[in-house]
Amino acid sequence: MSTNDLSHSVIFPIGETFESNNFTGTVWLNRLTPAGSACPIGNVTFEPGCRNSWHTHPGGQILLVTGGRGYYQEWGKPAQKLHAGDVVSIPADVKHWHGAAKDSWFVHLAVEVHPEKGPATWLEPVADEEYNKLQ
Amino acid sequence: MSTNDLSHSVIFPIGETFESNNFTGTVWLNRLTPAGSACPIGNVTFEPGCRNSWHTHPGGQILLVTGGRGYYQEWGKPAQKLHAGDVVSIPADVKHWHGAAKDSWFVHLAVEVHPEKGPATWLEPVADEEYNKLQ
Repeated sequence: MSTNDLSHSVIFPIGETFESNNFTGTVWLNRLTPAGSACPIGNVTFEPGCRNSWHTHPGGQILLVTGGRGYYQEWGKPAQKLHAGDVVSIPADVKHWHGAAKDSWFVHLAVEVHPEKGPATWLEPVADEEYNKLQ
Repeated sequence: MSTNDLSHSVIFPIGETFESNNFTGTVWLNRLTPAGSACPIGNVTFEPGCRNSWHTHPGGQILLVTGGRGYYQEWGKPAQKLHAGDVVSIPADVKHWHGAAKDSWFVHLAVEVHPEKGPATWLEPVADEEYNKLQ
């Protein structure tokens, strides 16, 4: 399986697509931990070009990249390229987005930190004009 | 890379070996989260035949298997075989061990749940006689 062909996920089962106004493109989610976990973990698979909107987490989040190529960007900073084996510790309340490269599937585990602090706050989409500039 | 040749880990960097009386065989640990994280995550790589001793976690632990073949066993229950893509939610205070099959490397992410409850309690090794019976 090449890094550009991850449509069946890499390691963890891909789960189901879900409808969300907070994503551009199609995304799959497989919740790996029981409801109520103190460290909820989801396996998230983005089709090429798919990304989430700008958002913040009140307790932070950890991304563990298991396959493909994508990006993580904090507001006001350049986007970082991500590959399998990369880990991102997203601080609480920092505005950011993550998602696939235009030409690659992208898969990460997402660990919600301090879920008792509440859900993410969703903001505006990543504009096509900005996303399409990414190399 | 076959599932029997994971000596360079699968996805996340293998990290360093560490000396511990709580393991039989050689194990590598790569801490993926900063000190003080509410959800500490380590990438743990076991050589063939390597396993940890029986132990308990006061807040529980989550294992996310990323490569190879191994086992998870709770006290008084049969050992479960583990492969890439398997997830184990280990309850708080349940006596258990995990490690590689005799003939395979084994790699998992380990997420410590409620680390503020304190470190693991380490108990007796898994006897060779019992381990060698595993199929």
